[in-house]
Amino acid sequence: MKPIVGIIMGSDSDLPVMQEAANVCELFGIACEVKIISAHRTPHFAAKYSQSAQKRGLKVIIAGAGGAAHLAGVTASMTTLPVIGVPIHSKTLDGLDSLLSTVQMPPGVPVATVGVGAAKNAGLFAMQILATGSKTLQKKMADYKKKLASDSLKKNDKIKKAK
Amino acid sequence: MKPIVGIIMGSDSDLPVMQEAANVCELFGIACEVKIISAHRTPHFAAKYSQSAQKRGLKVIIAGAGGAAHLAGVTASMTTLPVIGVPIHSKTLDGLDSLLSTVQMPPGVPVATVGVGAAKNAGLFAMQILATGSKTLQKKMADYKKKLASDSLKKNDKIKKAK
Amino acid sequence: MKPIVGIIMGSDSDLPVMQEAANVCELFGIACEVKIISAHRTPHFAAKYSQSAQKRGLKVIIAGAGGAAHLAGVTASMTTLPVIGVPIHSKTLDGLDSLLSTVQMPPGVPVATVGVGAAKNAGLFAMQILATGSKTLQKKMADYKKKLASDSLKKNDKIKKAK
Amino acid sequence: MKPIVGIIMGSDSDLPVMQEAANVCELFGIACEVKIISAHRTPHFAAKYSQSAQKRGLKVIIAGAGGAAHLAGVTASMTTLPVIGVPIHSKTLDGLDSLLSTVQMPPGVPVATVGVGAAKNAGLFAMQILATGSKTLQKKMADYKKKLASDSLKKNDKIKKAK
Amino acid sequence: MKPIVGIIMGSDSDLPVMQEAANVCELFGIACEVKIISAHRTPHFAAKYSQSAQKRGLKVIIAGAGGAAHLAGVTASMTTLPVIGVPIHSKTLDGLDSLLSTVQMPPGVPVATVGVGAAKNAGLFAMQILATGSKTLQKKMADYKKKLASDSLKKNDKIKKAK
Amino acid sequence: MKPIVGIIMGSDSDLPVMQEAANVCELFGIACEVKIISAHRTPHFAAKYSQSAQKRGLKVIIAGAGGAAHLAGVTASMTTLPVIGVPIHSKTLDGLDSLLSTVQMPPGVPVATVGVGAAKNAGLFAMQILATGSKTLQKKMADYKKKLASDSLKKNDKIKKAK
Amino acid sequence: MKPIVGIIMGSDSDLPVMQEAANVCELFGIACEVKIISAHRTPHFAAKYSQSAQKRGLKVIIAGAGGAAHLAGVTASMTTLPVIGVPIHSKTLDGLDSLLSTVQMPPGVPVATVGVGAAKNAGLFAMQILATGSKTLQKKMADYKKKLASDSLKKNDKIKKAK
Amino acid sequence: MKPIVGIIMGSDSDLPVMQEAANVCELFGIACEVKIISAHRTPHFAAKYSQSAQKRGLKVIIAGAGGAAHLAGVTASMTTLPVIGVPIHSKTLDGLDSLLSTVQMPPGVPVATVGVGAAKNAGLFAMQILATGSKTLQKKMADYKKKLASDSLKKNDKIKKAK
Repeated sequence: MKPIVGIIMGSDSDLPVMQEAANVCELFGIACEVKIISAHRTPHFAAKYSQSAQKRGLKVIIAGAGGAAHLAGVTASMTTLPVIGVPIHSKTLDGLDSLLSTVQMPPGVPVATVGVGAAKNAGLFAMQILATGSKTLQKKMADYKKKLASDSLKKNDKIKKAK
Repeated sequence: MKPIVGIIMGSDSDLPVMQEAANVCELFGIACEVKIISAHRTPHFAAKYSQSAQKRGLKVIIAGAGGAAHLAGVTASMTTLPVIGVPIHSKTLDGLDSLLSTVQMPPGVPVATVGVGAAKNAGLFAMQILATGSKTLQKKMADYKKKLASDSLKKNDKIKKAK
Repeated sequence: MKPIVGIIMGSDSDLPVMQEAANVCELFGIACEVKIISAHRTPHFAAKYSQSAQKRGLKVIIAGAGGAAHLAGVTASMTTLPVIGVPIHSKTLDGLDSLLSTVQMPPGVPVATVGVGAAKNAGLFAMQILATGSKTLQKKMADYKKKLASDSLKKNDKIKKAK
Repeated sequence: MKPIVGIIMGSDSDLPVMQEAANVCELFGIACEVKIISAHRTPHFAAKYSQSAQKRGLKVIIAGAGGAAHLAGVTASMTTLPVIGVPIHSKTLDGLDSLLSTVQMPPGVPVATVGVGAAKNAGLFAMQILATGSKTLQKKMADYKKKLASDSLKKNDKIKKAK
Repeated sequence: MKPIVGIIMGSDSDLPVMQEAANVCELFGIACEVKIISAHRTPHFAAKYSQSAQKRGLKVIIAGAGGAAHLAGVTASMTTLPVIGVPIHSKTLDGLDSLLSTVQMPPGVPVATVGVGAAKNAGLFAMQILATGSKTLQKKMADYKKKLASDSLKKNDKIKKAK
Repeated sequence: MKPIVGIIMGSDSDLPVMQEAANVCELFGIACEVKIISAHRTPHFAAKYSQSAQKRGLKVIIAGAGGAAHLAGVTASMTTLPVIGVPIHSKTLDGLDSLLSTVQMPPGVPVATVGVGAAKNAGLFAMQILATGSKTLQKKMADYKKKLASDSLKKNDKIKKAK
Repeated sequence: MKPIVGIIMGSDSDLPVMQEAANVCELFGIACEVKIISAHRTPHFAAKYSQSAQKRGLKVIIAGAGGAAHLAGVTASMTTLPVIGVPIHSKTLDGLDSLLSTVQMPPGVPVATVGVGAAKNAGLFAMQILATGSKTLQKKMADYKKKLASDSLKKNDKIKKAK
Repeated sequence: MKPIVGIIMGSDSDLPVMQEAANVCELFGIACEVKIISAHRTPHFAAKYSQSAQKRGLKVIIAGAGGAAHLAGVTASMTTLPVIGVPIHSKTLDGLDSLLSTVQMPPGVPVATVGVGAAKNAGLFAMQILATGSKTLQKKMADYKKKLASDSLKKNDKIKKAK
């Protein structure tokens, strides 16, 4: 199955966080590809990846990076595909640098940003994008939200029992 | 033409900012609707709007709010449509409150957030979402980016002439 | 005894923090109920809970949440009862996101916010609210403050002894 | 009519902001008193005011201050009445100093804090506190929220007409 | 020997930090007293302490507190003695709350603030204040700075040897 | 009259702020000198000034600077006199840079910092330091605080009259 | 004269700020070129510019941008020339976003960052880099610093005269 | 071999971080010297070091410090050599204090700042400066960047194999 979601990240140290986006794709039966692409260390690979993404069949790109997190923005500059940015918590400044350098894009080139470290939500948002053109995914998303609600509600039973 | 993009905001004071999202829709020939919906003052309207959005034909919702900006999150909690959040600069704290309360959503319910006040980018991201299912929009988005680039390049001519 | 204080929180991971509010209720002999209610995962439960709160006999609601902490605000939007917000420290941004998204409510819909993680103070403030209509609680609160003072003073004895 | 809400503030420059709390009291038919009390310049007045507040018939105190905003905390330390804090925006640091020094109270002595400059919400929260013991105020608060909702909804008519 | 420096702190949990100020006094042969005084839990003790400080022979007060750190400001409001504030790092917000609520005092009532957790520097600054009226202390302070310099310089020897 | 308080600042643009410190000296009858000394542009002048300060009869130095505000720290490194730092609000970052680079001094070399732009308080703190060795200044400081209190109290009369 | 310093910026609205860097080059007799290059709107131009910079004779690049300021980082990723970043103050968040997204580069790809809006300093730093290989520039830089010092010192004359 | 890069830091506790800059020099075959120099504890050593740096043959200085990080600025004030600042993460405030007090230098005296703790990048930037006058270093830098890219690309093989 050809991947339609690209999950990229600046460093392999981001993999444990970004894996959650891949897990969401798998859960929804959507093929994805996972790549280490550094906007700063491998700019040519980043350019090639972004420019060829649509042709190769990708429909959404999820990009995670930390610090001066440019990967999502650089990707968005070279594709018309929707790019979702995941700010990754770095060692200092508690993620604020990653968040601001991902979300504060200039007019004309949006990066849709999720919370710091929220790769799971990036995956879910990708599914919501794809669901705009797929009844099947809409159904799966609706089911997912139902399960989310019922899991949350069930926690109340535990509280009662714990008493 | 039935709207497929919903543009909502917490207060009519947000309208000058959010109008830019509507302008983008118009530019791309996509029908949108604009509503004042306060997550806190009109929670029932917010609930009704979110829950009926998909049935009424909406495909994407753009929600702008400032301060404890809950509108995008509240909307996302009651629809499976993709929700794009626009943090709106409030009188104090320089937009940081709006940004953090829009973007830091819990696992399971994403809001894709653009920069503070970046309603134009929210509109463009909505177009990119819709373009995943429309060759016409893909073409328009590619043209838009070309114009963006050529407008930016042309500014260099002015510098030269100014000398 | 029918609960008159509702203690709600976005996730069961908030329970260790929020339990302190329940402990205060118990100390003052006030019945409370504890629920996991996610503004984002179980919005319908949140709405039902808020709207029925007053009828079911609740007089005050304490709501704790982290990140884009909307629970207190969403609750306040659907009840006229006083809602006390407890911003809960999340993994990133050191609680600033939780604080700002709880406290910066728009005109018309207040959430009275305590410090980050300060569920005990939320419980005490609920007691102070209830004490406005109860001599017994006023007396208990005065005694509580006396004990607080005497406990603090006693620590000076330890310093002396330690020398 | 003897005041039951005390509205105090650190400086007369805070009056334009804090007046909104007094306006709310008037709207709900609740007598209030307004005083300039500086925790730092008139600590004895602050002490006397706080300690006598309950005896003099006050039921709630609203305290506004900016910068190292200690007034609400100092007041809360000397009364068992509920104290609502209003952080007032100072010339530098965009209100963050006022907010943090009002809200981050230590265990045992809560200050229920509203948003930066949100004196109106402080007034409304005082009403909600008083309403826990008054059917009349409950009714007024419910009506207030209805009007809030209907005013917000009406703004949608203007948008339509504007088109 | 009657103490001339008062070292006070909001909670006994601040003792490990504040002990460094006492150590400095001891090093310089200046008698000090150490007290747990909470601005919020023992306001009367705080008032009594501040008001009697000068009469009892104190010349400088060092006050350490965290969170909504009001102790230094409250003390400064009730004495004309110089008050040095030590913002103590609390569990959340990384000390920013403590710093801002200590340093941002209103016109007329200064608190001279040292760095977050910098009780040692508070002690040294107290010595510098006392040294304005004591040749002996001036000499000791000059010696202290010489030792500081020579200790720092010696670390360069270690680097060389390590090679 | 030989100056005993040195008031220095990084740039003449800081003069309107720092003048308030000089005004306090004048009010208390203390001679002061005012100098433009840039830690970065005139480091040799800064060194000469700091090193000669005590010999020339200065007892306290007040240093104001903005941005990477090093003047107070650089001065403190080369004198044993107490140095009071005034962080001056710069064009960006709202004074946070000035505050942090003034207050966060390393162990051994304190700078006693007042609020952002609080040159008046720096002047008053200098008076409090000098008052530790002067009954006259103690009396003046006590009178100053009484006037501060009475001025603050009088504002309440205006409120009453305004009604 | 072939330019050896490249001054680039994301938008023509950055020109008034960045012009100061060009002025410094002129003052030191160093030829520079000024270009509008958007990392996000004209990524191909940015790539071409960076990759050809060294061959075309450039020795240093100064890059200014605001918001999610990626230009300096993107440039640094595609050249081995030293890149100096100028964070430009954007409408919201007071320059913090620009600063963090310029300075927090990942290991391997440095951007040497100056203060927010400090294009003049960027120009001077470029001169200092070039001076490492030019006695003439070293001399000019030494003269520049002397003038800086003497201009700063002269401001003291004005203070005296003003008295 | 006479050192041409000076690596200095405020305290020996900064050595583990700053060692990375020395490692880079070694990798590029550039002699460097490492010194503990405290702007605040050893100001005379700092002055002597800065003033003699150029004569002694240094071409670039890298200065690391934390908290009120003045070392880089103080050094830059007394040499015309390029100074690269490394903000070092201190115990509180998460490095923000170090960053702002290093980067926000006044007009005329630049410090080129790298990310918090980014001593490796400081070393690399020093190499880039030196490379402006050395074909050999240019070649080494180009090779370094190639290796950086190829190392980053290789991580993709591991991902594939891991599957």
